[in-house]
Amino acid sequence: MGLVVQKYGGTSVANVELIKNVARRIISTKEKGNQVVAVVSAMGDTTDELVQLTRQITPKPEPREMDLLLSTGEIISCTLLSMALRAAGHEAVSLSGAQAGIQTDAAHTDARIVAMNPGRIWRELQGGRIVVVAGFQGVTESMDITTLGRGGSDTTAVALAAALCADRCERYTDVDGVYTADPRVCPEARKLKDISFEEMMELAVQGAKIMHPRAVEMGALHNIPIVVASSFNDAPGTLIHNEVTMELQSKIRGISHDTDVAKITIIGVPDRPGIAAGIFEPLAEKRVSVDTIVQNASANKMTDLTFTVARKDLDKAMDVIKPLVKSIGAKQCVADSTLGKVSIVGTGMQTAPGYAAKMFRTLSDKGINIELITTSEIRITCIVSEKQVVEAVQALHQAFRLERVA
Amino acid sequence: MGLVVQKYGGTSVANVELIKNVARRIISTKEKGNQVVAVVSAMGDTTDELVQLTRQITPKPEPREMDLLLSTGEIISCTLLSMALRAAGHEAVSLSGAQAGIQTDAAHTDARIVAMNPGRIWRELQGGRIVVVAGFQGVTESMDITTLGRGGSDTTAVALAAALCADRCERYTDVDGVYTADPRVCPEARKLKDISFEEMMELAVQGAKIMHPRAVEMGALHNIPIVVASSFNDAPGTLIHNEVTMELQSKIRGISHDTDVAKITIIGVPDRPGIAAGIFEPLAEKRVSVDTIVQNASANKMTDLTFTVARKDLDKAMDVIKPLVKSIGAKQCVADSTLGKVSIVGTGMQTAPGYAAKMFRTLSDKGINIELITTSEIRITCIVSEKQVVEAVQALHQAFRLERVA
Repeated sequence: MGLVVQKYGGTSVANVELIKNVARRIISTKEKGNQVVAVVSAMGDTTDELVQLTRQITPKPEPREMDLLLSTGEIISCTLLSMALRAAGHEAVSLSGAQAGIQTDAAHTDARIVAMNPGRIWRELQGGRIVVVAGFQGVTESMDITTLGRGGSDTTAVALAAALCADRCERYTDVDGVYTADPRVCPEARKLKDISFEEMMELAVQGAKIMHPRAVEMGALHNIPIVVASSFNDAPGTLIHNEVTMELQSKIRGISHDTDVAKITIIGVPDRPGIAAGIFEPLAEKRVSVDTIVQNASANKMTDLTFTVARKDLDKAMDVIKPLVKSIGAKQCVADSTLGKVSIVGTGMQTAPGYAAKMFRTLSDKGINIELITTSEIRITCIVSEKQVVEAVQALHQAFRLERVA
Repeated sequence: MGLVVQKYGGTSVANVELIKNVARRIISTKEKGNQVVAVVSAMGDTTDELVQLTRQITPKPEPREMDLLLSTGEIISCTLLSMALRAAGHEAVSLSGAQAGIQTDAAHTDARIVAMNPGRIWRELQGGRIVVVAGFQGVTESMDITTLGRGGSDTTAVALAAALCADRCERYTDVDGVYTADPRVCPEARKLKDISFEEMMELAVQGAKIMHPRAVEMGALHNIPIVVASSFNDAPGTLIHNEVTMELQSKIRGISHDTDVAKITIIGVPDRPGIAAGIFEPLAEKRVSVDTIVQNASANKMTDLTFTVARKDLDKAMDVIKPLVKSIGAKQCVADSTLGKVSIVGTGMQTAPGYAAKMFRTLSDKGINIELITTSEIRITCIVSEKQVVEAVQALHQAFRLERVA
């Protein structure tokens, strides 16, 4: 009994049969006495197809126009789902992001939610209806349609759960939970019963394609428990929440990896205040998302600065960096796009110093060279050659015995 | 120089190349010093494809959901057109019906415009931008998306032209003007330079698929000159307006035909007040659009009542009529779905009595039996066998010498 927000990803609503399947799942939740708000992504490849159309017209579509165009994808899936619910005998109504009261700033293609006005949703729920909301989209104060960028539909769902004070948010895709490592890479990987927001955030940021970190962050902020599960079966998923069972503390919870890493190193950077800002501000202006940043200790007032970006952004980043090298008085810059990264994540890592050593030893025993190391309180990340990423994940999974239930 | 509203139909924006072609046409109008508001229909078969999707889910989609779904078709074409204009170096912005301020009643799938709030369009025009509006759609007071039903995009264009006090409305499709008869049926048909609103309305109602009568009516009401032309060439189109050149008065202007006619006759209807209302009210409730109605002179307090409907509505109409036959005390009802109609249209027909006689004689000479006759001030319509419609059009075109410029 309660108010449940369910989010269904693009693969879960990829065709009419799957939409009917999702309708059955929603009805089953409703029939247990819950009020249900469902958030849907666009059907399968709809968004890609729309992007393809724009490519035939212009290499640089105007972001505002792009948003209005792409918003149609989620409207199509949400109206079809609402029809499927009605065809199965349940009152339902579909709402666009604007109708659902999701107000955003005007940063088109990557808008942030600034206010939630869920009055219409409340009225529909009071009327006994299932509410289906188009994910990924909102509306500005001046009535322009925006999209929320990567992880947008996840963010819609968690934001709605927060605004509606929902009892929980359930997030369905074709992946049935959070694993200790990617099961496609590491067959011994085990599904976790639960995981903390912080651990999930580190896993998500570090490349586990389960749920966007932005949505996890919002869940943490508003303390909305999120269940990650599959819409294709009834296996229990993974609960992302605040309280993690005591006996699981101080353990490595999972290994994430990412093979989409490019590294840029600026060699011989003069070590004076303002240099880093002078490098990363122009990158931010060009909307290049910088991941790991490492600056080596300075010797002779000179330092080397290394950072990583997604591969698709490498050319754009180099276009920014190359002219900067001269102007800041650095020696040169070099790029490497053949890298990947592997991270171990777990709460309490910092108070148990053996983890880092064990990670480095494990990689070394396999002959894997570590290019870069960065750490957070609950994560250690190594940048290694892309070719050795899979081997690294498998070795670490075995070394930390993640196949065992703690 | 002025403010021009241009409307492009689905065939004119059916693919990316055609959208670019439309962009060039708009730019050429703009470069002559005009402000341009373009209204677009959905690309080619988009709407049909969306309807197909709903068919796989439910035979009776909820009209509100249907409207929200179908509204995406025009949004896709209008954003792509706006991108094409920008790619060609012109500032442009696309607006949904809601953003364009087209407010309607809540009669989903067949909404009527109740108010136009073109503030946003004005601001965009002031900013020097070309405005592209999604046709066929509006929004209710409670922010629900509606569609305008048949002829919806034409209606959007003429309503915008009226609200913006535009100098003219140009309506582009794959047909390059109004002809004296359908050129596919009558090769001698001649394109008209201009035609009055009233004549166009009669032609449109009677089956010329050029422009929806609803939009023509709105043009007449607000005195908005409408140019009907092709987006595939630069041939001059036909101007629909109030003033028709004097020497063209008192002439047959065109012949329209329609092969989508079904006839229902109720035989032996008691001739007392309220009977007609008792028949046509239930039909209206089922949204059956009745075209021609003819009631024969009453003899012995009994009369025969005949009316025509579109063939797709015949079953629905018979479902309504059959139970009524008994309850009103009529004898029986019979249906015929093998009919078509042919009309001659022209101002001043009433004051020149020879036209009707000439029409009937022409048909008779060809051995074409007339099932029903109806007339208006500027039109004479004969219902004949569907098989003889083409022959009737050709014979009448020749008899009235419409191939000659008056």
